[in-house]
Amino acid sequence: MTTTAEPTEPTTTAKRERPKRRTPGARPVGVPYINRQIPPYDILSEESLEKIEATADRILAEIGIEFRDDDDAIALWKKAGAKVDGLKVTFEKGMLREIVSSAPARFTQHARNPARSVEIGGGSVVFSPAYGSPFVMDLDRGRRYGTIEDFQNFIKLAYSSPWLHHSGGTICEPVDLPVNKRHLDMVYSHIKYSDRAFMGSVTAESRAEDSIDMARILFGRDFADQNCVILGNVNVNSPLVWDGTMTKALRAYARANQAAVIVPFILGGAMGPVTNAGAIAQSYAETLAGCALTQLERKGAPVIFGNFLSSMSLRSGSPTFGTPEPAIGSMVIGQLARRLKLPLRCAGNFTNSKLPDAQAMQEGVMSMMSAIHCGANFILHSAGFLDGLLSMSYEKFVMDADFCGALHAYLKGVDVDDNALAYDAFEEVGPGSHFLGSQHTLRNYQTAFWDTTLSDNEPFEKWSQEGGSTDMAIRANRQWKQTLASYEAPPLDEAIDEELRDFIDRKKKSMDDAWH
Amino acid sequence: MTTTAEPTEPTTTAKRERPKRRTPGARPVGVPYINRQIPPYDILSEESLEKIEATADRILAEIGIEFRDDDDAIALWKKAGAKVDGLKVTFEKGMLREIVSSAPARFTQHARNPARSVEIGGGSVVFSPAYGSPFVMDLDRGRRYGTIEDFQNFIKLAYSSPWLHHSGGTICEPVDLPVNKRHLDMVYSHIKYSDRAFMGSVTAESRAEDSIDMARILFGRDFADQNCVILGNVNVNSPLVWDGTMTKALRAYARANQAAVIVPFILGGAMGPVTNAGAIAQSYAETLAGCALTQLERKGAPVIFGNFLSSMSLRSGSPTFGTPEPAIGSMVIGQLARRLKLPLRCAGNFTNSKLPDAQAMQEGVMSMMSAIHCGANFILHSAGFLDGLLSMSYEKFVMDADFCGALHAYLKGVDVDDNALAYDAFEEVGPGSHFLGSQHTLRNYQTAFWDTTLSDNEPFEKWSQEGGSTDMAIRANRQWKQTLASYEAPPLDEAIDEELRDFIDRKKKSMDDAWH
Repeated sequence: MTTTAEPTEPTTTAKRERPKRRTPGARPVGVPYINRQIPPYDILSEESLEKIEATADRILAEIGIEFRDDDDAIALWKKAGAKVDGLKVTFEKGMLREIVSSAPARFTQHARNPARSVEIGGGSVVFSPAYGSPFVMDLDRGRRYGTIEDFQNFIKLAYSSPWLHHSGGTICEPVDLPVNKRHLDMVYSHIKYSDRAFMGSVTAESRAEDSIDMARILFGRDFADQNCVILGNVNVNSPLVWDGTMTKALRAYARANQAAVIVPFILGGAMGPVTNAGAIAQSYAETLAGCALTQLERKGAPVIFGNFLSSMSLRSGSPTFGTPEPAIGSMVIGQLARRLKLPLRCAGNFTNSKLPDAQAMQEGVMSMMSAIHCGANFILHSAGFLDGLLSMSYEKFVMDADFCGALHAYLKGVDVDDNALAYDAFEEVGPGSHFLGSQHTLRNYQTAFWDTTLSDNEPFEKWSQEGGSTDMAIRANRQWKQTLASYEAPPLDEAIDEELRDFIDRKKKSMDDAWH
Repeated sequence: MTTTAEPTEPTTTAKRERPKRRTPGARPVGVPYINRQIPPYDILSEESLEKIEATADRILAEIGIEFRDDDDAIALWKKAGAKVDGLKVTFEKGMLREIVSSAPARFTQHARNPARSVEIGGGSVVFSPAYGSPFVMDLDRGRRYGTIEDFQNFIKLAYSSPWLHHSGGTICEPVDLPVNKRHLDMVYSHIKYSDRAFMGSVTAESRAEDSIDMARILFGRDFADQNCVILGNVNVNSPLVWDGTMTKALRAYARANQAAVIVPFILGGAMGPVTNAGAIAQSYAETLAGCALTQLERKGAPVIFGNFLSSMSLRSGSPTFGTPEPAIGSMVIGQLARRLKLPLRCAGNFTNSKLPDAQAMQEGVMSMMSAIHCGANFILHSAGFLDGLLSMSYEKFVMDADFCGALHAYLKGVDVDDNALAYDAFEEVGPGSHFLGSQHTLRNYQTAFWDTTLSDNEPFEKWSQEGGSTDMAIRANRQWKQTLASYEAPPLDEAIDEELRDFIDRKKKSMDDAWH
């Protein structure tokens, strides 16, 4: 072209000959999980990684970690040879790495639909919805406390997306249900409204055990004893404290041969140092201790090495999300986890924005790309968060799910077989012509490019005159409503359904009785 | 913590003791360019790269490139030993790589303020505004053709941002000025309203020469003959055609020892194949030929290896931007450019959104992160684009500039010195306490975290009750107006200013005379 302006569009001639559109309404077909075709992004040298490990080792050996309200955990540490001083446990250099070496580098979490079972570890990437918000939001009703209806709606939206792989866990808190019973309804909702793998409760040992029991009903007790059928996400009480509630839940999952996801939440400057290397060393030490505890409870139990670095606004003291320091720090955590040969959970799609606006996606994409690049196998919080993790947004959820689709294409990398190299296309087209009607294009166009369902790619005139000048949030609002309206539940074996409902009724009744 | 919810905030105790706020209103201090502390992201193996190079070599040797309307370029190719058949030039394997080996791997582009000169090559990263839109947009006035006032406004906004390094070139087309004269006003505006490095015109050989002459007035002819003081961005007419307008401009820059940026614009499926590897091979071949031509014109002249991959909506035939395939393809282009030891220009901040909304930043961040990860030294289009490159948006410009600030922090990587490892902080704080008042925090908090000027990080209640429930676009609208209102031009030597204005008057008069 002869002007400096790069923007251009296919010529009119070209347009006449372009291939036919894809079949309208054809639902994209997802995969049960992604096998990444690009390597993780290693940003630190071996020497620098060793410095961070050495700092973590020194923290573990000299400062130690407190294990509160869990005598059994303390006993396990003593038996394993750790030094116990009251609640404080210290570990000789290398001891914890030796203990975690019995954990599998990769395992399968089974889904009730076997075609949807996920691999966790190696080059796998599993997208799971966000987790833990007390509030929900949508453009029509604004922000409000989450309910079991919202909870089920998000399960249905996740189930309906070809780009999410996992049903998640506490997608939002259903605060309309009693705290001591809601875990039963949550686990049942995952089983009933989706056929994907899911997570159970961790807020009390008994709730973890109830969750596992429900998975046993679904999969059969023998199968569940030998295979991972449920995950539990446990948090460190950073800095350097493991609370008994969490270690008891962690041990309940490990005891049942189910996978705990071990996650410190380190807000730099509050629960950890303001410098990245220190926060990473802390995260490594805290997670390693949690992973090791699973192996002391049951050697060989699956476990996931997690992390959650965050930063702080030094103007207001508020936590900040989707910022550069945690994004770059996650890549280092990934390198450290690979040295341990443990499956990795990292980052997710975070933002402090209170609306599904430019800030939401700027911060969200930065953090999500980091999760992708660091080599994470299980990406919790892949879709839905707004409001500094405090709200699940219906619009953001479908935006994020669409972006997860883009990441499927991204993680395919670049093929270099003869078809992809396309020499025959150059022979056919030659200089100065175009590729729209070429054999190579006709052969490949159906699968060539990721196809969004939310971005508007029309020319300005069409967007403004025919499309109603919508922004992405408006289109997302329409999409989630349409998706819920057309949702159909996957069939569930009636005998299993009945057994689950009996279990829940009995449990609830026993809780009621406990109050009389 | 003992709940499953990860979201949390510092405790009240913590808040009392947190460090003082940064000085309000303190303007962040930028750097003239970034020296990246993280490596580029290599996604393909050597073997795969060689397959792409081999395809490019075969295209160059057997299909060839047409050089139209430039007899001097054809003569240079003949003299260099290429095979010329009419307009078509073919090249033996390795010939072009041999020719470009005389180009510098790294050079300085001088700014009139020496503190703002930029390095281009090696580990440098230079952010430059977007380039070439006929339209401008803002939230108040919508979309309209660009004017010289808009053009100057964007120069002022770029100058005022600590996170952009370069003044750019055709930031928007000032369509209120005559086509044959506007380059003079554009170059003068860059010199007058900024003290940063800038780009000149390429839309005709004479306009390229006028631009270079104005740079000679600014820097002195002798200095300008030995140093790079202006860039010209030239486009291939893909596939496999170099138009004379572009090669003559390219040669004018090289002849004057100034740097041409060589950029194919390949919309996969139209100007190139739909498969990434083929589009990359084509881009490599086209760029390599352009880079080699600069060396035939003047051996040792600086040149920048550019690329611009894009995809297409197979629903509408529209070009799409910020999509996964070009993002991943750019990383491969980066690997190929490093094998050539040439400075690299890649990608930028692209979107097809017509508003500064979630789509704009989702697509923008994905493409910008790719530019960062591929190792690009000169990132044109770092700020401002909306509307498929057709519009410069005032709001998007300041959003993107703020995000460039985040990328400064990202590219610092992770320090692992003793201060960053923070062992003393753990000794001081220990398990179960917090780091807000620790010596380590007090020593580091001022520089610990990137500080946005546009993202809202307040709690929901404060955002909604005191902050007016703004979305990022509204805050950006306020920011660009405030920035323009407080803009002050950097002083310019009066004798130089006069000489420039004389030059422009003479040139304009000679153009008027040419029409009589």
